Amino acid sequence: MELAMDGPALEAFVAREFPQVAGDFAVEAVGEDLVLRLRVADRHLRPGGTVSGPNMFALADVGIYLAILSRLGPVALAVTTNATIDFMRKPAAERDLVAKVRLLKLGRTLAVGDVLIYSEGETEPVARASMTYALPKT
Amino acid sequence: MELAMDGPALEAFVAREFPQVAGDFAVEAVGEDLVLRLRVADRHLRPGGTVSGPNMFALADVGIYLAILSRLGPVALAVTTNATIDFMRKPAAERDLVAKVRLLKLGRTLAVGDVLIYSEGETEPVARASMTYALPKT
Amino acid sequence: MELAMDGPALEAFVAREFPQVAGDFAVEAVGEDLVLRLRVADRHLRPGGTVSGPNMFALADVGIYLAILSRLGPVALAVTTNATIDFMRKPAAERDLVAKVRLLKLGRTLAVGDVLIYSEGETEPVARASMTYALPKT
Amino acid sequence: MELAMDGPALEAFVAREFPQVAGDFAVEAVGEDLVLRLRVADRHLRPGGTVSGPNMFALADVGIYLAILSRLGPVALAVTTNATIDFMRKPAAERDLVAKVRLLKLGRTLAVGDVLIYSEGETEPVARASMTYALPKT
Repeated sequence: MELAMDGPALEAFVAREFPQVAGDFAVEAVGEDLVLRLRVADRHLRPGGTVSGPNMFALADVGIYLAILSRLGPVALAVTTNATIDFMRKPAAERDLVAKVRLLKLGRTLAVGDVLIYSEGETEPVARASMTYALPKT
Repeated sequence: MELAMDGPALEAFVAREFPQVAGDFAVEAVGEDLVLRLRVADRHLRPGGTVSGPNMFALADVGIYLAILSRLGPVALAVTTNATIDFMRKPAAERDLVAKVRLLKLGRTLAVGDVLIYSEGETEPVARASMTYALPKT
Repeated sequence: MELAMDGPALEAFVAREFPQVAGDFAVEAVGEDLVLRLRVADRHLRPGGTVSGPNMFALADVGIYLAILSRLGPVALAVTTNATIDFMRKPAAERDLVAKVRLLKLGRTLAVGDVLIYSEGETEPVARASMTYALPKT
Repeated sequence: MELAMDGPALEAFVAREFPQVAGDFAVEAVGEDLVLRLRVADRHLRPGGTVSGPNMFALADVGIYLAILSRLGPVALAVTTNATIDFMRKPAAERDLVAKVRLLKLGRTLAVGDVLIYSEGETEPVARASMTYALPKT
């Protein structure tokens, strides 16, 4: 497997394309799997100190998107067409979330990935997600 | 069908439980269906002026949650266990989104709803979502 | 909305392409919505006399597929890429199932539909499904 | 992790509860993961010789169900409440399918598992599924 973009290149892409959220995410590993951290801050939290559903959705979505870019290079026009999330456990309060991403398919027109999301340091996932992306014609 | 909470009661509940997002949402109808508006602001937008995926997720999630509350009253402990979204069209730039919510099941332990999301004034939905909630034991 | 195939044309298509299951399904209405009946027989049942999950999956899948064909004509190469089903109630024992199908998107490369499935004569759905199909290039 | 049922006990359970399909499935491993084989026969095939979607659905459904039973023992009343499948590649013609199942959550009222399905001998999955089960009160 050859990588088209490494961690710093992916973070630079996010900073350029999604400046509003760029500081939220850190790429911790790129390769067969991709590991993405959500640096949890007050704005991500629900009352009780746990990360909200939309922020877990965003973590999974950005994670799979970056896994696609790591193979294809900076194709800014990939769009999410389907997303499914299972919320299985309450995240630990005020702790970062770590997403482990696998790319299951990278076809000509569609890509599919799945994700397990963990509260940092825990072994049981808080959520599972799978998403499909439509790829721009080349 | 009897309602346990009307539109103003639902908005007051959101303001109390989710103060960070309360101003974002307006309940436009409650009854067999529920209609919820996302008042689109700069913080909801991606480059290009369209609403981001996580914000559409949040609109669907809050919409179905409020439909459950409209029947059961203020059960703050209902939690989303599964969410599926199909993103079908690009939202119109800088226009409010309107979610039309149906409650398909309201059981003792699980509730299921689905949603069509429209850019205001359009007839083709931009997204479709269905979600399951675990209800607190009573 | 113009129809490319009516009910008898759709049933003839199923008989030709899927001879193993052709007798199972009856197209009851085609138009803005499509209504498809599963003629329940012993082979569809689980112990207890209710229709099994895979047979409800098949009903939803065939229903949305036929709704696509009703618009596009006999494009035998459309393939299901994603399916989500919520099983909400136990079907009534040994009663036919009726699927009400809406086509939500019919794009150049992807189509999306959703379905409510009812035990005949009931008003509460037993299941809800949404599916995505990749359309052959034309 | 302690097992409540091993492979032969699971196969005996399927033979007793689902006699119509019992010969279709072989439990090849039980432990942290569960491996279930679909012995492909003519009745599982679509024209072209590939396994149909409903049969892949059934394989995933039975696989996760058996993974739950391997931990809990023979709780015949667990019911599938939600299923999501991504069909990613065409299965190889007339070849068995092998499902690799992980149990991601085993709570008091809900269990969640996911599955990768392979054509025997291939390294790229043909499908991915995740499913939720409601567990009977104990």
